Amino acid sequence: MPDQVAIQGEAASYHDAATSVFFGPAMPRLYCKSFAEVFKAVGEGRAEYGLCAIENSLYGSLNEVYDLLMARRFTIVGEVYRRIEHCLIGLPSANLDKITRVYSHPAALAQCTAFLDQQLPDAEREEYNDTAASVSYVKQTGNPAWAAIGSRAAAELHGLPILAESIETNEQNFTRFLVLQKAPWPPKRTDNKTSLVLITGHNPGALYNALGAFANRSINLSKLQSRPIVGQAWKYMFYLDVETGAANADFKSACRELTEQGCTVTILGSYRHGWHNGQPTA
Amino acid sequence: MPDQVAIQGEAASYHDAATSVFFGPAMPRLYCKSFAEVFKAVGEGRAEYGLCAIENSLYGSLNEVYDLLMARRFTIVGEVYRRIEHCLIGLPSANLDKITRVYSHPAALAQCTAFLDQQLPDAEREEYNDTAASVSYVKQTGNPAWAAIGSRAAAELHGLPILAESIETNEQNFTRFLVLQKAPWPPKRTDNKTSLVLITGHNPGALYNALGAFANRSINLSKLQSRPIVGQAWKYMFYLDVETGAANADFKSACRELTEQGCTVTILGSYRHGWHNGQPTA
Repeated sequence: MPDQVAIQGEAASYHDAATSVFFGPAMPRLYCKSFAEVFKAVGEGRAEYGLCAIENSLYGSLNEVYDLLMARRFTIVGEVYRRIEHCLIGLPSANLDKITRVYSHPAALAQCTAFLDQQLPDAEREEYNDTAASVSYVKQTGNPAWAAIGSRAAAELHGLPILAESIETNEQNFTRFLVLQKAPWPPKRTDNKTSLVLITGHNPGALYNALGAFANRSINLSKLQSRPIVGQAWKYMFYLDVETGAANADFKSACRELTEQGCTVTILGSYRHGWHNGQPTA
Repeated sequence: MPDQVAIQGEAASYHDAATSVFFGPAMPRLYCKSFAEVFKAVGEGRAEYGLCAIENSLYGSLNEVYDLLMARRFTIVGEVYRRIEHCLIGLPSANLDKITRVYSHPAALAQCTAFLDQQLPDAEREEYNDTAASVSYVKQTGNPAWAAIGSRAAAELHGLPILAESIETNEQNFTRFLVLQKAPWPPKRTDNKTSLVLITGHNPGALYNALGAFANRSINLSKLQSRPIVGQAWKYMFYLDVETGAANADFKSACRELTEQGCTVTILGSYRHGWHNGQPTA
């Protein structure tokens, strides 16, 4: 199996930066055009690992990745948090006042709405499937009236000037990325976070009782995301992150109680959480 | 204030059909291009009501609408459930085997993936902002090699033949729509559903304790959707639907307990649920 990581995006994308944080800059990347392609590459053994954004602190969860996780049942082996700082990047001859079109990923365009509204109210906003790819596209066109939103690393990689920096509307802009592999990964004593999928019975109070299996053992919940169950209209599954490893005796006991309650529990992975001194890793 | 309903989409869109279910076919519509435009029209008093999809049984919640609901604090006054049945619609001279391009809303294209993969594997899939608009666009082009995915009503309105019907991959394809107004609407004794936003404290078990305020009063929860709180990374608010009206004494008592627990509760609306004999209204 090639010891490489499948990621969405190109060199100098935010996924690329997150990969360097987790695996180091020398780890080979397999660049993919979509999350589905990342999961396919890992499923076919073309990459040992995959790295996918799962959530942004402004945008919310990426439902497509949650659905792929449940469909493929890969193992989550780690997570990375990154502050997202956007730059407006143009050609060397570009002038901020003369930009008529801005390319980027839809999430990046949305996160820079205030800047675009104030500084470039007349510029068209064009969606692109990756921030780094939008920077390389603007470089290729050679059009000084066009710019792209991407990372400082993307500007440096392509040798293009930054026309404006930190243009995101809200500074609390963090993305959480998950690291995945196809093979099961046994829980370790050092794990302190577990991701799982919970399907409760349909009785009243079912979710409350299920959360009690964790709360009554002082296991804290850091995330709860509901998703529809396909084929069962208005029934939901819940993606939970709890702050303990799956090898923990209390966690195992909570899972036994959930089964007794009639719940189905699927453990997606047990790993070390990506926070550092209470702050996201940078 | 004009007694009309602002909706996303055109005549014969799924929003248009849901409007007829709730208000009757004679109610005037103000057709809008986006959900943001619907909220703007209601906010500016150009329409007394707005009607927006909030959730699809296959796709999940429409986060944009949840975020607009919280930002605008309009009142939810009702809901409508509709089965979504898609048709492939083309020109009178069209031949199913010769279709090279299919237009529709991204959600409709996604819901018809199996049909498109099997019957039209080589056809390009082009996104359009509304199903009904994609049908009228294909009619305008006059190109018999192009088709659109929309409702039977859209085919009838535009006098175009249905090339294939019930082409959605999964029959459990229902959409829930909310009816909104700007002015507050006092809860009535006949209401049997309430939508609210809950922000808990950050103590462990906070969500479990909050759900207990309802579970311990036998108030059932039909929906729980988490959304990020902008500016507070990794803190969440929860959109809840509970199966009782806001005038109910137990509901009021639950809200008092939530306040005592340190939660913030915002009631978005109290209304009659849209189910009929255990089935979605059709």
